[in-house]
Amino acid sequence: MSMSKYNNIAHIKEQFPVLKQTIHGNRLVYLDNAASTQRPIQVIESMTDYARNSHSNVHRGIHFLSEKATYLYEKSRERVAEFIGAKSDEIVFTRNATEAINLVARTWAEQNLSEGDIVLLSELEHHSNIVPWQLLSERKKIRLRFLPFNDIGKIDVSVLSDIWDESIKLVSVSLMSNVFGTIQPVEEIISYAHARGAIVMLDAAQAAAHMPLSVKALNCDFMAVSAHKIYGPTGIGFLWAKRDILEDMPPFLGGGDMILSVDLYSSSWNDIPHKFEAGTPNIEGAAGFAEAVSFISSLGFDTIIKHERVLTDYAIERLEDIEGLTVYGSKDSSHRGVISFYVDNIHPHDVAQILDSRGVAVRAGHHCAQPIMKRLSVPATVRASFAIYNTVEDIDVLVSAIKYAKEFF
Amino acid sequence: MSMSKYNNIAHIKEQFPVLKQTIHGNRLVYLDNAASTQRPIQVIESMTDYARNSHSNVHRGIHFLSEKATYLYEKSRERVAEFIGAKSDEIVFTRNATEAINLVARTWAEQNLSEGDIVLLSELEHHSNIVPWQLLSERKKIRLRFLPFNDIGKIDVSVLSDIWDESIKLVSVSLMSNVFGTIQPVEEIISYAHARGAIVMLDAAQAAAHMPLSVKALNCDFMAVSAHKIYGPTGIGFLWAKRDILEDMPPFLGGGDMILSVDLYSSSWNDIPHKFEAGTPNIEGAAGFAEAVSFISSLGFDTIIKHERVLTDYAIERLEDIEGLTVYGSKDSSHRGVISFYVDNIHPHDVAQILDSRGVAVRAGHHCAQPIMKRLSVPATVRASFAIYNTVEDIDVLVSAIKYAKEFF
Repeated sequence: MSMSKYNNIAHIKEQFPVLKQTIHGNRLVYLDNAASTQRPIQVIESMTDYARNSHSNVHRGIHFLSEKATYLYEKSRERVAEFIGAKSDEIVFTRNATEAINLVARTWAEQNLSEGDIVLLSELEHHSNIVPWQLLSERKKIRLRFLPFNDIGKIDVSVLSDIWDESIKLVSVSLMSNVFGTIQPVEEIISYAHARGAIVMLDAAQAAAHMPLSVKALNCDFMAVSAHKIYGPTGIGFLWAKRDILEDMPPFLGGGDMILSVDLYSSSWNDIPHKFEAGTPNIEGAAGFAEAVSFISSLGFDTIIKHERVLTDYAIERLEDIEGLTVYGSKDSSHRGVISFYVDNIHPHDVAQILDSRGVAVRAGHHCAQPIMKRLSVPATVRASFAIYNTVEDIDVLVSAIKYAKEFF
Repeated sequence: MSMSKYNNIAHIKEQFPVLKQTIHGNRLVYLDNAASTQRPIQVIESMTDYARNSHSNVHRGIHFLSEKATYLYEKSRERVAEFIGAKSDEIVFTRNATEAINLVARTWAEQNLSEGDIVLLSELEHHSNIVPWQLLSERKKIRLRFLPFNDIGKIDVSVLSDIWDESIKLVSVSLMSNVFGTIQPVEEIISYAHARGAIVMLDAAQAAAHMPLSVKALNCDFMAVSAHKIYGPTGIGFLWAKRDILEDMPPFLGGGDMILSVDLYSSSWNDIPHKFEAGTPNIEGAAGFAEAVSFISSLGFDTIIKHERVLTDYAIERLEDIEGLTVYGSKDSSHRGVISFYVDNIHPHDVAQILDSRGVAVRAGHHCAQPIMKRLSVPATVRASFAIYNTVEDIDVLVSAIKYAKEFF
């Protein structure tokens, strides 16, 4: 990391007011970015500006403010669509990636899957990409099957041909593991599934802050993203889907804005994407989301990837130097800024608590991925996860705090 | 309205930055409050403050910021619960009232209604309280039945005994009409339904800014509210339900936070209300929502009702003075701050456009209640709706702008 790059990161870090605080008298070292990133000023201000100057309900008003709010909301959709190389009307705003996955389970899957059909997942999925399918499986008597993952935290695609079954109609996998930080071999899964007539959904919640996403290049059918994991606000995310799929899908929630006309006993639906957005949407959330993707684009993924590469390599090296500490997941370049580890003889919760006393925010727990914990035979892991505003100094503080924890216990 | 009261309103109005702008060179007269109210500074600042100082993901972290964000989110739930005299864990945060109604349709109703059962609605419901039941009716082969409304815009409870049928298991009605501004005779509906073993849901989205809500006094079983109609942000609302009902309900969306434990093939659920909140919630939205109910409580409903009474009476009187203008709905004290009207020979959209040119924001359209428009035999109405920051001067501007529109056409 060159000096000029470092200056750049320091300047970027200046944009994040939350990072300027001290915790228990120590500088905050925020390493819980895989749970939620912080927001740069431009995101915060776009939402404040909306509330102070532009608020009105959208889509239904003829007056100036309503037109302004509608323009802003739809322009936000365009900016978010551009971020993944999609068309604006293929973006359905949801509360978060979780709702996006549930939306597919409650609409496309209910319409297209029937008893005995299989949804193929992987064993390293976040709960948000397991539980909706379990609920569907109860409602529709469909079956679930799981791709295993290997010792470096990647879905094992070598077993695809063994595991495949013509009853598999949908595959839903993470693009990046929120536990191991590994980018998953989704291209192979997608081409394998498509060649056999199955549809593929990508849970890109963890990936979206760390690598450029192109739905065309990936050639997936569905994609789910949350704003709050990519420098945006909570309360907004999106489902992207290929246009013909989206057009054929039945509505999810009923209400205002998603209809074309309503009689007492029957209704007809609005065009996509509005068909899937019932009621007043999170308008300021959309504004903040659009500003978050602008922030990322202004940095560029070259910068982001390079910086997170430096942090990840440095962190793995320093962490593995600590006796009795095990780092899980790949050591190669597919490992991006999320490091799960376990310190012998100290419960991860205790590690996190000691780290917190030194100002270091990490996560300890199952990371919404209990099946992974079972596989690793640990109750939990400690997870340190990075964002563009983290520095090698942050990792030095982390390492020294872990050493302190080891002494403490 | 005494002079001191006027000073009070002027001071309240100062709290709303959005109202300080000019539209086409005229002072903004915002009379589209039934679609969405504006936010006082304290609401805006609570959200900014959250983003600048307190953001982290909730419920899962051991570090300082995560505990702070969790405290803030759960404290917001308490404050919102208090607003309707409920317990905190009976409040499920949703995106809006629409989602709250859909949640009931997708969980309680799917579990408890079967083929042939009837959901009783009224003909003056917002689309958000019609379409979810139509969708349910397709999925479960249940039937819908509608209570008619009378000429003063109230649900006709005199027909309850004629229309009742032991197959009616759920009644879902608005507490206040978003078209007529009338408070509905829900007490009679609730006691009638309860005596016959049916459950009652109140859509309180329109009512919540205009009258005190006590779920105990009302004795309803479900209640749906949106923050953005009561001086709060978009993207957040709640479903309240009686505890035993909530506890028996199956989950809606699957994902993180709503689970207790997850295996690959089965999961167990978290306690209420978390069981119904999958994934990262709208944390800053909850903060803003809590601040909105604090704003309302600091004014007190006595002040709000008195002020809106003055505005409504004055507006009806002045509007009815205009030749060829018809005001719909009751003239009595059950009419609260929402006035739908029609001006002969001028399409409502044209009225709204002329009004906009004079800085007056009203809504023209079906107000997400197409069945009402059919009943009134008009394509649409113009709707002027008031909030605590409106003044009699606003109504004078409205009236003069309507007169101008009449001259124009």
